Amino acid sequence: MANIREIAKLAGVSVSTVSRVLNNHPYVNEKKRAEILKIIEEQNYVQNSNAVHLSTGKTMVIGVTLPLVNNQYYSSIIEGIAAEAVQHHYKLMVCQTNNNPEQERSVLHLLKNKKIDGLIMCSRSSSCETLNEYAGYGPIITCEANDTTSVSSVHIDHYQTFLIGMEYLMKKGHRRIGYCIGRKNSFNSQHRKRAYYEKLRSIDVTPSAEWSFEECLTIQDGKDVVGKLLQTEERPTAMIVSCNHIAAGIIKEASRLGISVPEDLAVVGCDDQPIGELLEITTVSSSSTLMGKYAFEMLHKRIWTQQLVGKKEEKELSPVLVERLTT
Amino acid sequence: MANIREIAKLAGVSVSTVSRVLNNHPYVNEKKRAEILKIIEEQNYVQNSNAVHLSTGKTMVIGVTLPLVNNQYYSSIIEGIAAEAVQHHYKLMVCQTNNNPEQERSVLHLLKNKKIDGLIMCSRSSSCETLNEYAGYGPIITCEANDTTSVSSVHIDHYQTFLIGMEYLMKKGHRRIGYCIGRKNSFNSQHRKRAYYEKLRSIDVTPSAEWSFEECLTIQDGKDVVGKLLQTEERPTAMIVSCNHIAAGIIKEASRLGISVPEDLAVVGCDDQPIGELLEITTVSSSSTLMGKYAFEMLHKRIWTQQLVGKKEEKELSPVLVERLTT
Repeated sequence: MANIREIAKLAGVSVSTVSRVLNNHPYVNEKKRAEILKIIEEQNYVQNSNAVHLSTGKTMVIGVTLPLVNNQYYSSIIEGIAAEAVQHHYKLMVCQTNNNPEQERSVLHLLKNKKIDGLIMCSRSSSCETLNEYAGYGPIITCEANDTTSVSSVHIDHYQTFLIGMEYLMKKGHRRIGYCIGRKNSFNSQHRKRAYYEKLRSIDVTPSAEWSFEECLTIQDGKDVVGKLLQTEERPTAMIVSCNHIAAGIIKEASRLGISVPEDLAVVGCDDQPIGELLEITTVSSSSTLMGKYAFEMLHKRIWTQQLVGKKEEKELSPVLVERLTT
Repeated sequence: MANIREIAKLAGVSVSTVSRVLNNHPYVNEKKRAEILKIIEEQNYVQNSNAVHLSTGKTMVIGVTLPLVNNQYYSSIIEGIAAEAVQHHYKLMVCQTNNNPEQERSVLHLLKNKKIDGLIMCSRSSSCETLNEYAGYGPIITCEANDTTSVSSVHIDHYQTFLIGMEYLMKKGHRRIGYCIGRKNSFNSQHRKRAYYEKLRSIDVTPSAEWSFEECLTIQDGKDVVGKLLQTEERPTAMIVSCNHIAAGIIKEASRLGISVPEDLAVVGCDDQPIGELLEITTVSSSSTLMGKYAFEMLHKRIWTQQLVGKKEEKELSPVLVERLTT
């Protein structure tokens, strides 16, 4: 079996050109690419991960940070990343950070130390200063909008998502609307809350503090919301919820406690998780899997195009309302 | 800020002893461990992943293979692995293999090339020969039973799981029982089918080929099962299903087509996924998260105890019946 040097010799090109073809580098002359692929096939060449490493200086590993591993939203981003990564012979180093900036920094260190070729941060706790600092070492993409000068992002428009959900509920006649989000101070949460308060203000409703539920991450957290709703002085007639798993917990517990959905409590979720369809939850949907796919594409381009490192690019996904039975 | 060498000097121990403490190596004298931790705290020492690497020869990365990333069963195994890994300062390299033995081999190569300290295979397509070959290079744990001589496993007793489900359905009076599983020829599937056929034989029922559904991996696959059930000559009155996501698809589509669950079709799922509770699916439950936790513990012990490499150990998790509304 031929090695990469023999393939290069037979094709009359450099080892790094063969390597670029093997790694689906976007910028190789198409005719040359076809010639090289033909020789690779004739020689029955099987790529050895170490050979790639030596000839390109790449690790063929990208890092992915996420706060917790077993969460449908993050799993579906990773699904999108992984499907693309396999195509391009990349492996993923998945790092659970528990939203701890120190843990995030240890992953950013991997980029600095060239243990990974690039990094996708599904969510982040690090400051913009820290991100800018590390962006000089290699490409970083965040899956939420960020205020840095040099870190690119692919993100869902969470402001628009909550806006659509609020307008829809208001059109249905709701005025006492509560919200339910994950991390209190994340970039995404700030955008969601801005839409929430703007919309309520537009109909002269002053939201009660009792209508806001933050740090909701699990189905159980959703269930707990219902218990708390029962103790409010003026119970909301509708809830807008950042994630369909939390919405599922709310609906389930409401049913157990005899609160009718949507008659007593309307619920709008905000993602495209399968649980939304299974439980017929009205949702403002964006594809987190697609976001992961785009994030990998953007990262891959930057890994192989040195000039793009540190040049900010932003891609925003727009949400769509899917009306079902919970409103 | 002190480095690892200064910590070692202050504690009067070797660098590798400090490193063992930092990495929660199980076999360090407790008194010495306490002394070293005190100095680490006093010196405000922050671990640098590269320093660990240099002083111990470890990468502090473990590999995890799984066929596809966005699948609740595998996500929940990884949740268990990741929670333990974070405690022990390990990072995960998660590799999606699409059940392709070549892709698995490229991950096994990472073990051979010391790019990872150990490997957990959530499912596997490689032969026992291949696994035995690579087990010499470092610890491997499979999350399904295996017939190798040297690869350890932590696994759910899938034979027992299907046995419990079948006995329960038979006690309810069902005789025409179908099954629904994932990969046709996986080790787990073989055990499930053995229990299925044994139990039907015990009541002199010859199962129809139309009652068996294999390669079911998504909710949509579950929905498709119902369409096919409608075309059978003798429709089963009950289904035993290897995973609650597939069961959810079946229940959902049955409801859409006017087939009453459980009256026209009883459904038993076989895992502990939240969707089971949300849709009130009767299930034979085992904790895949716990399996992941045990797999990491077993692997970690083997990474740090050279004598255990290649010595087979097996840990089996027993399932429990949880009766809900679909039977």
